[in-house]
Order: sequence, then structure tokens, then C-alpha cells
Amino acid sequence: MRNWILPEYISDVLPSEARQIEALRRKVLDLFACYGYEQVAPPLIEYVESLFTTDDSALDLKTFKLVDELTGRQMGLRADITPQVARIDAHILNRQGVTRLCYAGSVVNTRPDGVLATREPRQIGAEIYGCAGVAADVEAVELMFESLALAGLKSPRLDVGHIGLFHALADEAGLKGNHRAEVFAALQQKDLSTITEVTAAIAPELQAALLLLPSFYGGHEVLAKARAKLPPLAGVLAALDSLDQLTAALQLRGIVVHFDLAELRSSYYHTGLVFAAYAHGFTNAVARGGRYDSVGEKFGRSRPATGFSMDLREFSSLPFPSLRSGVLAPGGDDVALLAAIRALRSAGDIVVVDLGVLASEVSVDRELKRVDGQWQVLPLATAC
Amino acid sequence: MRNWILPEYISDVLPSEARQIEALRRKVLDLFACYGYEQVAPPLIEYVESLFTTDDSALDLKTFKLVDELTGRQMGLRADITPQVARIDAHILNRQGVTRLCYAGSVVNTRPDGVLATREPRQIGAEIYGCAGVAADVEAVELMFESLALAGLKSPRLDVGHIGLFHALADEAGLKGNHRAEVFAALQQKDLSTITEVTAAIAPELQAALLLLPSFYGGHEVLAKARAKLPPLAGVLAALDSLDQLTAALQLRGIVVHFDLAELRSSYYHTGLVFAAYAHGFTNAVARGGRYDSVGEKFGRSRPATGFSMDLREFSSLPFPSLRSGVLAPGGDDVALLAAIRALRSAGDIVVVDLGVLASEVSVDRELKRVDGQWQVLPLATAC
Repeated sequence: MRNWILPEYISDVLPSEARQIEALRRKVLDLFACYGYEQVAPPLIEYVESLFTTDDSALDLKTFKLVDELTGRQMGLRADITPQVARIDAHILNRQGVTRLCYAGSVVNTRPDGVLATREPRQIGAEIYGCAGVAADVEAVELMFESLALAGLKSPRLDVGHIGLFHALADEAGLKGNHRAEVFAALQQKDLSTITEVTAAIAPELQAALLLLPSFYGGHEVLAKARAKLPPLAGVLAALDSLDQLTAALQLRGIVVHFDLAELRSSYYHTGLVFAAYAHGFTNAVARGGRYDSVGEKFGRSRPATGFSMDLREFSSLPFPSLRSGVLAPGGDDVALLAAIRALRSAGDIVVVDLGVLASEVSVDRELKRVDGQWQVLPLATAC
Repeated sequence: MRNWILPEYISDVLPSEARQIEALRRKVLDLFACYGYEQVAPPLIEYVESLFTTDDSALDLKTFKLVDELTGRQMGLRADITPQVARIDAHILNRQGVTRLCYAGSVVNTRPDGVLATREPRQIGAEIYGCAGVAADVEAVELMFESLALAGLKSPRLDVGHIGLFHALADEAGLKGNHRAEVFAALQQKDLSTITEVTAAIAPELQAALLLLPSFYGGHEVLAKARAKLPPLAGVLAALDSLDQLTAALQLRGIVVHFDLAELRSSYYHTGLVFAAYAHGFTNAVARGGRYDSVGEKFGRSRPATGFSMDLREFSSLPFPSLRSGVLAPGGDDVALLAAIRALRSAGDIVVVDLGVLASEVSVDRELKRVDGQWQVLPLATAC
């Protein structure tokens, strides 16, 4: 019955969950601020052309469309915030040098990502523009781990991949259009027979390399194996070098890296390193991110970019911060009473004025009572 | 150029404004918490039937429509949060007794309310369910004034009206349907000739009373004048009694009341006392609210309700909280450096790691430097 009137995969955030989301939202935004990230809040609706950075047919399908009554043009309800932040970096702020931006807000999807997903994730994330080096990816992963620690996840697992491996092999093999997209999709499902079929006409060593990608899965040994078995194309070597650098830098920060070199699922616009965090008890990744260097191109300014995001609602199953109990105060217009209430609230106490029977879910454990002409806070009489 | 790619009356919230909105949002939500209000966060989209409480044709016109791909049903992008909170009170929480709820979130309107308005106000508000007495309205007004004080508005002007006056007169005169709506609309514009024309057939003393409503505008003397000149219908007397009680209680709290007894603009669903705050330098009301006792009826449970809301973006013209300057730290993987950075951030400092030339808008005034083998915070060398 709880959602009787709401659409499927859409739900209210009720008080206990709202308290948790609010607390986590503040902690994570404060963390971002400590790293020098500046918050931005792009609008919920935009013209569809500016909501997608490239040919994001997948993102397009996830985006609700609306008609702008003022112009008749088609608008979209954002299904992702990253392309909006890229637009702000590229065109609105248009700064020279490294720019760190962060955001927190709802996105809405036409369909849920899975049976347990919501169509309205509360996205929070951070992004670095203007730095092409692995150091920026290191910072993004570090920030992702610190954010997850604030949510209560102390040791999530980090999976790292690099979309450059696929693209280097596909470029060399001359895979284009539908063929390329089919292989890309098949790799995500580790569907070797489809890859074999679609790549029948390409050079055998490149076909073999594509078929090997899903096997590069595991600990640090994976990188050496990939270096030994993949053709030494420039794009392949550059990707493996990045992965090596990232691994070393994260190790120093106490973060262990797992590899999944066929992991291409991160998002529609990623171009290089991609990463995702997984935790026990969670079906989907609890946070994900990666590099999307070309993302601002559509807005007239292609800048290197990397970042991560997570959904604040994902963590509802973790322990709630408990609600502080308040002080019950009688109603009425006694001036001394009003002053006593004001003083308690200024000191940070919750004071609930008695306007009739209180809902039993409201927690009060003390009351303001007049004793010998003075208003005093006393333990709540059980009769009340 | 700033909005070149965005629809009209839609804009990004950039870092300085975002910092201000975030700070105010937190302060106001903390204030609500101190009064015992619990936060809820209803979804951005719902089936249209649940987004409107009554025959809200005005709210309907303001609401963007979407098609739910999962069911083919029509959904709406919320243009108001109050009907959603009423749904939560009535059907989801379904508590006995007084329930205080609050919220903060974007709403989206198909058209702006005026040339200076945004189509995406950041609404923040508080509501009390289950208390029919004026004491609840007093709390709502008090909370509205405290919220405005947090925004920097120390002495806004309070205008109060009561929709019951119009309804008592219209009921007695037998005004129905279009005629009633026309008079209602004409009153808002203080358009006496239309009122005269449309009410030509009703009893002369009721017509005279309706024509008098716009003249009841000013200080406390207005209430005595209205009592003397309006017909002593039960609804009229009850409304005037409420206004008297509200005025006395607010006076004790240091809030001066102005009256505008033809002020019916507050919102689509208001039923009794309505109020709005105005401030120097602001074209529109900076906050508004009132009583909407029947609002939960559609959700199967009619409860008394009162509350207020305001738009966090309205206050962007007020002074911004200044951004704290940070510490610039070199990049690299020196373990002692990483520890120094961590310690500074734990102490609340902003530490920006050098990933290349920093955008000039990022404020750093100190730097981490190794001196005699120790990492130390020093004033930033001007050459840097």
C-alpha cells in the first residue's frame, strides 16, 4: 500500500530516510569543499540538445521529454548531471586552468536500471576539469572512497577498467558503426560467441585480443598478463601505463585495486579509465566514475575531465542517525514561556509546542513546566 | 550569453549562489528541526491525479506533463510540493495527532510567475497537520519570520488576509461556478467594475460587502471597520475572530500585522487565513502561506493544515557568505605529504592539490611546503 498512488520505481523519502540522506548529503558536500570543489546546481530541465554530450542514445532513451510552452522546443528532464556540469565548465565558467566542481540533486530516468533501482536517484558527485594526468583520477577515486566511508562503507571493493583498450583494438581492426557497437555490448555481457561472430572478418590476432579482454579480471597480475598477451598498440600501452600509475598511487593511499578490463559499463560518455566501487550487501555498484575527456566538446571546448558520482538513496539500508528527542512546551502566549522556548531552541534543543495530541512518532522526553513561577525543563511525566 | 543554451527563465546556479543557497538551506532546515518538524522528500514526478488536491486548474496549467513509459499513464513534474506533503500526511504516514513536516526541493513551472521569476524555484517550507486552531497559524508565521531572518531580512512586512470572508459572502449570495470564479479573480485585481457587473443580481448588501473587501487594507483598525461594515454572517465573524487572535499572538512575538482582506492570491488550495511577507527591494512576496484545511481530502483524509514556503533563490541579491581560502598542496605521492594533507582536511581546512595551473577563481592563500624535511603551511609565495 505504501506506494499505492505513486508510479512504479518512484517513492517518497519519509522522515527517517530523509534525515539520513540529509546528513550524508551535508557530510559529502563538506568533504568535497575540503578538497577545493565548488558546488553548482544546474537546472532540472534543459533543451534536449544540451542534455547529451555526444551521440548518447542510451542516455536519450533514459530521458523524459517535455514541450517548452514558451518556444515549442523539446526539453528534457535530466537523467544525468555530468553533461550539465561539463556545459557549465565549458561554456558558463569558461575558466583557464584546473576547475573542481561538485553537485547534489535528483535525476529522473524513464526506466529503472534494475528491479531494485529507483527512477529518481539522488545523485551526488565531484568532477575535475582541465587535468589530463592520472593524478586527477587518483583524486577522484580517493574522494569516492572517502565519500563511501562517510556513508558507513569502510572497505568497498574497487574495480578499475580502461575503455581505451577496447577502442585501440577496435580502431586497429577497423571496426565501425553497428559492428563496433555490437562488440562493445557483447563485451559488457562477456558474450564470447557474439564477439567471435561479429569479428569474423578482422585480423585473427585482434579478434583474439578482443576475446581475451573479459579474461583480464582479478588482482595486480592482470596488468602484466595483459601487457604480455595484447598487441603492443600505442593505445593499448598508454591504457596499461595509466592503470599501472593509478594502481601505484592508490596503493600508497591504502586502496587496493581490482581489474576488470572488459568493464565498459560505467557510463555513456566515458573515454578512458573507468572505476566502480562494490560493497557487500549491495547488488549494484555503490559509486562509479571515470574519465570523459571529450565531454565538453559539444559546448565548444573539449577539456580533460574525470569524476565520480553515487546515489544518496543507495545507503538507506545502513544504520540511521537517531533522532534527538525534544522538549514538549505548552501552547499559549505567556511571555516568559515564549522566552524560555526561544532560549532552548537557540541552544540547539528541539522544542515542540503542544498544539493538541502529538503524533506518537514524534519523540519528546522532557517538558517545559512552570515550577514556583519559573519555566523549567523536567523529565516528561508518563501520564503525558 | 550566460543562458545561451538554456530555456528562458531557467538558469544554472553557479558557485557563489550555490554556496549561499546551500548555507541558507541548511540553516532553515535546522531551524525547522528545532521546532520539531520532520523532513520529507516527495518525488519530482507523480501521476497527475495525485499532484493536485482539488480542481486546481491554475496549478494544472503550471505543471509539465510526461508520459510514463511503463504504464502509458500521464505523469506531471511537480509545480508545488504542498499537495505532495498533504498526500504523505494523509495516506503514507497516516498518523493520529499533530504532525509537523518540512521539505526543501525544486519545483518546475511551465511559465514564470513574472518577468523576474524563475521557472525552477527552490522551494523550502514547513507544514502543520492536525491542528485547526490559530495557534498553528501563529507558529507558521513565526517560523516564516525566523526563516527570513536567517536569509538576512530582519523586518519584512506581514500582510494577512482570510479567504473565509469571500467564501462566506459568496455562499450567502449564492454565487457559483464561473460567476464566483470571476468575482474571485476580480477581487485579486481590485477590479470593482467587474465585481459590480457580475454581482448585479445578488442582494445589494452582499454586493456592497464584496465591493468593500478591497478597502479593508491597512493596520489594526481595519478589523474593527470590517466588523462594523460587513454583514454579521457566521463565516464572516469566524474569520474576523481568527484574524483578531492571530494579531494578538503575533504582537506578543514582536510581529506587526498588516491586513489585506481582499488578498486571495496566496495559492490554489488555501481555505482560511492567508499570509505573505514583503521586503524592501523585492518585487514579489519573499514568503507566503496559509491554511489549507481540505487539502488531504483527495487522499482519503481531510485534516486541518497550515504552513508556509519560500524560494531559496529569491535571496541571491543578499550578501554572499565569503568563501574560505584554501591551502595549495603539491601533487605527488610522498607519504608524509599525504598525511599532512589529510590532517589539514580533518581540521576543516580546504586543501587544493596542485594538478596544474589552477583556475584564478579558486582562492588559496597558503601552501604546503617542505622546510627542513617537514611539511609546513606557509603564506602563498606571490610568484605562485
